[in-house]
Amino acid sequence: MKNTINIGHGGGGRLARDLIRNVFLKHLNNPKLAQLGDSAIFELNGSRLALTTDSYVVRPIFFPGGDIGKLAVCGTVNDLAVAGARPLYLSCAMVIEEGFSLKDLETITLSIKNAALKAGVEVITGDTKVIEKGQRVKESESQSNKSEGSNIYINTAGIGIVENGIELGMDKISVGDKIILSGAIGEHGIAVLSKREGFDFESTIESDCASLHGITQKILRSGNIKFMRDPTRGGLAAVLNEIAEDGNLEIKIDEDAIPIRDDVKGIGSMLGLDPLYIANEGKVVVVAAKDDAGSILQALQNDPLGQNASIIGEVAGKEKPGVYLKTSYGGTRILDMPVDDPLPRIC
Amino acid sequence: MKNTINIGHGGGGRLARDLIRNVFLKHLNNPKLAQLGDSAIFELNGSRLALTTDSYVVRPIFFPGGDIGKLAVCGTVNDLAVAGARPLYLSCAMVIEEGFSLKDLETITLSIKNAALKAGVEVITGDTKVIEKGQRVKESESQSNKSEGSNIYINTAGIGIVENGIELGMDKISVGDKIILSGAIGEHGIAVLSKREGFDFESTIESDCASLHGITQKILRSGNIKFMRDPTRGGLAAVLNEIAEDGNLEIKIDEDAIPIRDDVKGIGSMLGLDPLYIANEGKVVVVAAKDDAGSILQALQNDPLGQNASIIGEVAGKEKPGVYLKTSYGGTRILDMPVDDPLPRIC
Repeated sequence: MKNTINIGHGGGGRLARDLIRNVFLKHLNNPKLAQLGDSAIFELNGSRLALTTDSYVVRPIFFPGGDIGKLAVCGTVNDLAVAGARPLYLSCAMVIEEGFSLKDLETITLSIKNAALKAGVEVITGDTKVIEKGQRVKESESQSNKSEGSNIYINTAGIGIVENGIELGMDKISVGDKIILSGAIGEHGIAVLSKREGFDFESTIESDCASLHGITQKILRSGNIKFMRDPTRGGLAAVLNEIAEDGNLEIKIDEDAIPIRDDVKGIGSMLGLDPLYIANEGKVVVVAAKDDAGSILQALQNDPLGQNASIIGEVAGKEKPGVYLKTSYGGTRILDMPVDDPLPRIC
Repeated sequence: MKNTINIGHGGGGRLARDLIRNVFLKHLNNPKLAQLGDSAIFELNGSRLALTTDSYVVRPIFFPGGDIGKLAVCGTVNDLAVAGARPLYLSCAMVIEEGFSLKDLETITLSIKNAALKAGVEVITGDTKVIEKGQRVKESESQSNKSEGSNIYINTAGIGIVENGIELGMDKISVGDKIILSGAIGEHGIAVLSKREGFDFESTIESDCASLHGITQKILRSGNIKFMRDPTRGGLAAVLNEIAEDGNLEIKIDEDAIPIRDDVKGIGSMLGLDPLYIANEGKVVVVAAKDDAGSILQALQNDPLGQNASIIGEVAGKEKPGVYLKTSYGGTRILDMPVDDPLPRIC
């Protein structure tokens, strides 16, 4: 199976990173792509613009706190936001399986409308493709021939503008910088899972799906920010490991400082899922200069989307690159990069 | 089945137009989207930019003259080109079914690279999602349980710059304008069909898949061009009907002036497909001021991609809106807007 794509290639972990390096970067290499940022930044007639793209394949398409339409707006807005950009316009392209409900399509379109309005962006161009309905049969269910509902996949690309003076990048991170998390983690992943067929529990946990550019634009004015990323696929653990790996940095995290709701911990533990690896859709990890961390934290906490923000750790050195978690019990364990995807189709 | 999506909603015809109007435009309406151009045009700090998006779901993914990767670059470049833009950057997002061959993925990535190099654009940002492999079983083949190969869907969004002075739009078209076609039609659709399972013939017809911005930028300097569109889904007939419908115009087309290869006619006739309705991926329909049509035709014919260009008709009046085809036999027939899609999954 080494010669074929597997679910892990679409996760936020090692396999996905290898695929990007060994196939896409290998052939399409150019300086803008090689940054591997959430958005690519380019200059045009004196303006600095950010371009990003994301496809959304979440199952189920409706989940507590949102749906694939809201996700498709917020996720792409957030990829612009963490690049320091102010989002302007989105494209929206749908690939729909025949048999898909027109009513559901209208509901999703309304979600897109509302999320775009709330984020202050406009969807200005689109595309629709329809594919034949495959009788999608899960292997384990092939005997009963149970077919799943029709699918929809949404791609949104986004364009934004980066104000002069904003220079973010993993290469800006240095020893001593503080790591700030904007709020509690794991809610999006648990909310989606709670609705996914096969689990027989319901919870009150809603996806944290939200557009973050209001908060990112605000904190960019509150102090020296080196780098931002939204912990989606692969969760907080993937983001921290990317930072550690790309800069050969030793990152120390204090487990007790990471905000996680008790019910997220509980359901995660029931399912054998560590919230540190679960996707979020309305949180941002901020790496800030040590002396500015306090003012940035304050700015975050003053916003409803950041009221549970916390300084969770720091860039401690360069001697032992990796992510080290000081546990609640006083020990220290290595927080590894996820290899594949514990939760496919989460976004 | 009125309440669900069918294959026709993804075609270039009536159903697709109704879906766009009754769902997407209804809810997402804004002046830029409402133009329904191949690209949306917006202004930023004094520059006019074009943004477009397209998803590619063609089956099979490899066909004579190209593959889904080449198509994903050329198709999006062409959507920018016919909007009068010079393409600059592309995003590329892949949705891949697990089990997809890594070798095929590398081949497709190389096609993207080569097509981008040839078009002078850079892919600067991307995304990869992996979905579970459904055992896609065609209904007619469900007895033999024959499964198709793993799928890949590619979305490319593109951004380009529109030089000052270029103002294209259906609203610019007036009575007397000439309609120019840049070359022979039907080749892409026939090439894809010839490879599609179920047909047992092979032909030497290759897809015309090519990036058109070189030729469009050239002809924009050769005379007064009112409007351009590439006849993809729905073919030439759909483009002409859109022009007639949106402007309440009477369009007269001379069948004998439309370049079509004999073998395309032959295979089309064998399959019951009219080349006027078949998708192209390297052709452009140009509506030009009457007095400039000659110089624009000349500029087209001087380019290898336009050597078979021809003036195929004109905007004859406003009395009887519609598209009228003067046939080879001397009669006149109405060339209707396609209702649904005679050839799904062609791009």
